[in-house]
Amino acid sequence: MSSPASPAQTICLTKAAQVVRPPEDGLPFLRHDRAAELRFDPVPVTIAGGTIAAFAETDAELRIDASGCAVVPGFVDCHTHLPFAGWRAGEYELKVSGASYEEIARAGGGIAASAAALAEAGDAQVLGQAKSLADEMLAWGTTAFECKSGYGLSAEGELRALRLADELDRLVSQTTVSTALLAHAVPPGYSADAWMDEVESLLPRVADETDATALDIYVESIAFSNQHLARLGELAADAGLALRCHVEQFTGNRSVPVALEHGARSVDHLACLHPDDLEPLAASECAAVLLPGAEFMAAERTAPARELANAGAICALATDANPGTSPLVSLPLVIGLAVRRYGWTAGEAVLAATHNAAWVIGLHERLGSLEIGKSADLLLLDAPIEHLPYRLGHNPVLAAFRAGELLYVRADTAARFDV
Amino acid sequence: MSSPASPAQTICLTKAAQVVRPPEDGLPFLRHDRAAELRFDPVPVTIAGGTIAAFAETDAELRIDASGCAVVPGFVDCHTHLPFAGWRAGEYELKVSGASYEEIARAGGGIAASAAALAEAGDAQVLGQAKSLADEMLAWGTTAFECKSGYGLSAEGELRALRLADELDRLVSQTTVSTALLAHAVPPGYSADAWMDEVESLLPRVADETDATALDIYVESIAFSNQHLARLGELAADAGLALRCHVEQFTGNRSVPVALEHGARSVDHLACLHPDDLEPLAASECAAVLLPGAEFMAAERTAPARELANAGAICALATDANPGTSPLVSLPLVIGLAVRRYGWTAGEAVLAATHNAAWVIGLHERLGSLEIGKSADLLLLDAPIEHLPYRLGHNPVLAAFRAGELLYVRADTAARFDV
Repeated sequence: MSSPASPAQTICLTKAAQVVRPPEDGLPFLRHDRAAELRFDPVPVTIAGGTIAAFAETDAELRIDASGCAVVPGFVDCHTHLPFAGWRAGEYELKVSGASYEEIARAGGGIAASAAALAEAGDAQVLGQAKSLADEMLAWGTTAFECKSGYGLSAEGELRALRLADELDRLVSQTTVSTALLAHAVPPGYSADAWMDEVESLLPRVADETDATALDIYVESIAFSNQHLARLGELAADAGLALRCHVEQFTGNRSVPVALEHGARSVDHLACLHPDDLEPLAASECAAVLLPGAEFMAAERTAPARELANAGAICALATDANPGTSPLVSLPLVIGLAVRRYGWTAGEAVLAATHNAAWVIGLHERLGSLEIGKSADLLLLDAPIEHLPYRLGHNPVLAAFRAGELLYVRADTAARFDV
Repeated sequence: MSSPASPAQTICLTKAAQVVRPPEDGLPFLRHDRAAELRFDPVPVTIAGGTIAAFAETDAELRIDASGCAVVPGFVDCHTHLPFAGWRAGEYELKVSGASYEEIARAGGGIAASAAALAEAGDAQVLGQAKSLADEMLAWGTTAFECKSGYGLSAEGELRALRLADELDRLVSQTTVSTALLAHAVPPGYSADAWMDEVESLLPRVADETDATALDIYVESIAFSNQHLARLGELAADAGLALRCHVEQFTGNRSVPVALEHGARSVDHLACLHPDDLEPLAASECAAVLLPGAEFMAAERTAPARELANAGAICALATDANPGTSPLVSLPLVIGLAVRRYGWTAGEAVLAATHNAAWVIGLHERLGSLEIGKSADLLLLDAPIEHLPYRLGHNPVLAAFRAGELLYVRADTAARFDV
């Protein structure tokens, strides 16, 4: 279809069964103990000039009949490893049959395999795969997402990965941000300490040559330590970049206090979070990024997400899209896994995949919630949000807007658009 | 697009990366200890007159470039509860937050809620919902499926449900069969014994007025007993209908020996299968129908699927699509859940969702495997089958054929069709 909505148009969505909005306090996030304050009243939504202009009916160039539908913010995928090259499906088959990480590494698997694939692939090939995944993510309702480097495993490799992320931003329909995951695995020929020296000398080029807004590290027995996390925290503060970290995934390392001490924006995974670290995390402005897709696919423990939410943490959900531990890109599926594993409500899950996810990637002022003046990034879903986790695998997205522009519409939905 | 393929056409699929075929012994099923004998060699596939005519290149009216793709049999969903009315999303939210079955029942949930919804809904409404789900199933690759009654909960209600299943068969693109699940829950006002008397007197009308080919029963502490299963087995034998049964789902009842004694075609669920019943089941021609979607959504135990496969059982996979315990319709998702939970290979899962599923519903002579003379029910997938469980939530179906007719094609796939 020719696009019936451009950012300049005035659009009014009417008759929705639910419009999901935060309470009226204008905070940059909503702590999960306040999720019950989400508002669901079926107000009309008017978009003008690409932003949310009013929650009232107005004269509009385009009217959309949202009967029976939910209107929610566009999903924000705040933890992905795009762009990457190729897949590791064979490794997954070994993994589910019980092969150990060592066996998989010996069979040529793991991060090293994806690093080799990235090094071998041309830029166009990497971008083509990532663009195709971004299109798929859009069809599942993702209107903003994070990219990470991390498969470069050399100074030049990491810079190339970040440049590819910047190029991807120009290719895709979504808003993106990029994170320099400079400490993902210890590159061959380095000790972890020596690689951190390399990271330090790399940082000026990251700042000059790329659009990265955050630094990231993987703290795990097979990767980096809490000492390295502390060092990266200092480097991030010096460089004016946000600090993020992969922590407590397969083993408990008490990394969360270190992350909090260094003002991390997020701690991601948390399947092995130490009970004593839960309250301090919940009291902080550091988000708990939960990745139930990775938990399921990599057979991790379940993060204490119910407890984090009850304690008032800023919880976020993401796909962790990557070719190893979480080769999935659908946030509705992640919401389904989260609700089942965590005992969350649909509202808690939607909050975690929108408003709080926008906080994680630093775009909370622009997007992530349906508030007047924010970018009109929103989805029309085919049913109230309680159906999102319940109809596991179903795609409920009828239409996706970013900045008031209709980016995606399901084929059977055209009749709702009265141009 | 106008349909480029009609049953009369000769079609040739060439250059596929994989074509999934059984060994050449022509058996009506493939026991899972022989799954490694599946053949994957990339032969051309020629379709003529709606059937598979040759595994060789031929002159064809339509040539399809299957480069990089897998060609697999159309998925057969051998256990669904279609047609049903409405959904029970609110109940699911109670369930994940830890509400007991009793609490859910008191809140108006459970089978009784779906029975009330079915009774209140007009035929057109029920058929409209089921047709919409069937279309969604087709887009996920399901070219044949089973329907069940069971939400009638009265003699007339069950007959209506079976008549609706027969009408649905005429509405949908897929091949369907219907099963009379006459003993699903004990209807209000009856004892289980008294309801079985009613079932017995209902059977002549089921045979005369409906197309049902099987009888089914739910054996569980809250439903029917092994004695009722034995009685239904005798009734099925007398009526010339197949016997199927929901057993060992939430509690262990040692129902499998009773089912085997009565020549059941399948035993479904099996999360609580007794270890002593595994070998006799595996040695029989009774299929083990595994429902990992229901296991996940209803927080059941995991069926001993790896052990059943190793012991040579005829394993099948299905969605159990229903508004209570398993509101999902995607067999690729079920394959993903199965491989992760069961430690199965992708080949084992595809076998269970095609060839052995066709055996369960008695259509094994016509469909379920890529063999010469069988109906050309097949799928073009966008990658080798190892990607099916690995890319959880992704829809790999580029095109779906039933009896040589192109029923579904993904929008970006047209270039592969050289008409």
